[in-house]
Amino acid sequence: VSQSTVSRVLSGTTAVNAETKARVLEAIERSGYLPNHSARAMRTRKTGMVGIVVSRLTNPFYPELIEALNAALSENGLRMILWDADLLGEEPAVEAIKGNLVDGVIFTTFVRDSPAISAALEGGEPAVLVNRPAPDVPCDQVASANEDGGRSVAGYFVEHGRDRPALIVGPDEIDTGTERERGFRLGLADLTGSDNSVRFAGEYSHESGYAGFKELMSGANPPNAIFCMNDLIAFGAVDAARDLDIRIPEDVWVVGYDNIEMSSWSAYDLTTVDQPKVAMARAAIDLLLARMDTPNRPLETRRFAPRLVMRGSTGA
Amino acid sequence: VSQSTVSRVLSGTTAVNAETKARVLEAIERSGYLPNHSARAMRTRKTGMVGIVVSRLTNPFYPELIEALNAALSENGLRMILWDADLLGEEPAVEAIKGNLVDGVIFTTFVRDSPAISAALEGGEPAVLVNRPAPDVPCDQVASANEDGGRSVAGYFVEHGRDRPALIVGPDEIDTGTERERGFRLGLADLTGSDNSVRFAGEYSHESGYAGFKELMSGANPPNAIFCMNDLIAFGAVDAARDLDIRIPEDVWVVGYDNIEMSSWSAYDLTTVDQPKVAMARAAIDLLLARMDTPNRPLETRRFAPRLVMRGSTGA
Repeated sequence: VSQSTVSRVLSGTTAVNAETKARVLEAIERSGYLPNHSARAMRTRKTGMVGIVVSRLTNPFYPELIEALNAALSENGLRMILWDADLLGEEPAVEAIKGNLVDGVIFTTFVRDSPAISAALEGGEPAVLVNRPAPDVPCDQVASANEDGGRSVAGYFVEHGRDRPALIVGPDEIDTGTERERGFRLGLADLTGSDNSVRFAGEYSHESGYAGFKELMSGANPPNAIFCMNDLIAFGAVDAARDLDIRIPEDVWVVGYDNIEMSSWSAYDLTTVDQPKVAMARAAIDLLLARMDTPNRPLETRRFAPRLVMRGSTGA
Repeated sequence: VSQSTVSRVLSGTTAVNAETKARVLEAIERSGYLPNHSARAMRTRKTGMVGIVVSRLTNPFYPELIEALNAALSENGLRMILWDADLLGEEPAVEAIKGNLVDGVIFTTFVRDSPAISAALEGGEPAVLVNRPAPDVPCDQVASANEDGGRSVAGYFVEHGRDRPALIVGPDEIDTGTERERGFRLGLADLTGSDNSVRFAGEYSHESGYAGFKELMSGANPPNAIFCMNDLIAFGAVDAARDLDIRIPEDVWVVGYDNIEMSSWSAYDLTTVDQPKVAMARAAIDLLLARMDTPNRPLETRRFAPRLVMRGSTGA
């Protein structure tokens, strides 16, 4: 066959006689050089692999979410590869999906609407955002209803007379956190007529929780309930209380967000807002498979209801 | 050109006129279908990507090791992709390296000498085992000197009169743990004339540490020092002590292994054996790059000295 026939087979853009195509693919596969699963993808457009973009692996929420995604993929006979986006952004994942290394991509990280992502999505490549919604990115999305989660914590504080509330938050550009904070503030204003909460801003880290707790509790009229935007921050707050001999929950309540496994350990015994990781992971894989089958189906966003899990770091 | 010429270019097994080869590769790349980085690999045999095989991501030691590997790769202009081996074993990584999706693979998991791995290694594919040595697998390896780490804990206990030692260990087939235990026992026998330690066997989990501590401390003559084979187990032991009102370190010392970040948090304040994760990660990437440059260089194993980090869970 001619070189241009090989090109046409490889690109799949124009018709090639079926028998010729089979011979060319067989020859390429026989050569042993080309990736096996790329050769397979040429025939079926299915690699059986899904890429997952992660960051901040040292926050245990992400390993737990990845395990849930991995389990959901395995149930569907798919395999997972991961990219750590902290150093490289989402570009490798976009390249991989354009290059047919994977059948689709799941982003668990914050994603801005970048030219690279737009190009991939406009090309109909299957992609789902899970955990961090981004209304301006045109793809299927799965998230927990963060605003409702924040609101439920405000209701819990008000119901139990915790009238000097405080927040320890992360950077403003992380949507999940700002949604939780907004829900908390709106809930407080709705229930008490005004939002009287004070606020310490840092990172999503144990260190920030530790520093935030120390600063908040050093004032003349310290808070009697602190809502931390994730569990890692709350662990730092509880550890600061331990070092300062401030009693939890007697002197101050501490609430986290995520319900990672550690929050149930005796050291923290943390009241927190549970994100249904397993259900969210299943939904993400569902949406990805639906998009693979029907590339032009309407965009869909699924929100899961969070649930307040009460433990020893609060008094009721 | 003929189909067989294309095959020869793709396989790289026999000589093809340089100009013809360039034209074929250009045509394939122009087709836009073939993965960009596979096309690049055909010219240079460099994808710029390294695969990392992980498991048990919910043990924070692994995310910390992955971050160190990612940093070392980035310093060398390489990118990382990860496979989670818990559900699928090492097969996808072996496929990827054979298919030239990656330039090399780093295994952080337990690896048996399997036919698939042997075939890849005999083909000269670059691979490094880091963290879990496997003497029967013929490839470069990086590990901490686990036996020395265990021995240092025995010396520490003996030096401070902790004469009723106990161990909480994981499954016997995990080499890192059995090396640590052997070092501890040999050290004890060398220093005191006999190994009088008692032992609880479970998993590498908080839950096993919790159960092990409860069982060990319920006897008539409970231990006054417990060496746990990793930090997660030790956290479970400390949490059990908290729930049983047993004082650490007054009533019993607890020592872990790994020195993950959490071990320094006030909740645990754990004495532990540090594994030099950053140095180990750098060495793994060094060995991988050396193997890429010189496929037939002699096999090399680098062992790093562990270091006892003393904190509040022991009394000295």
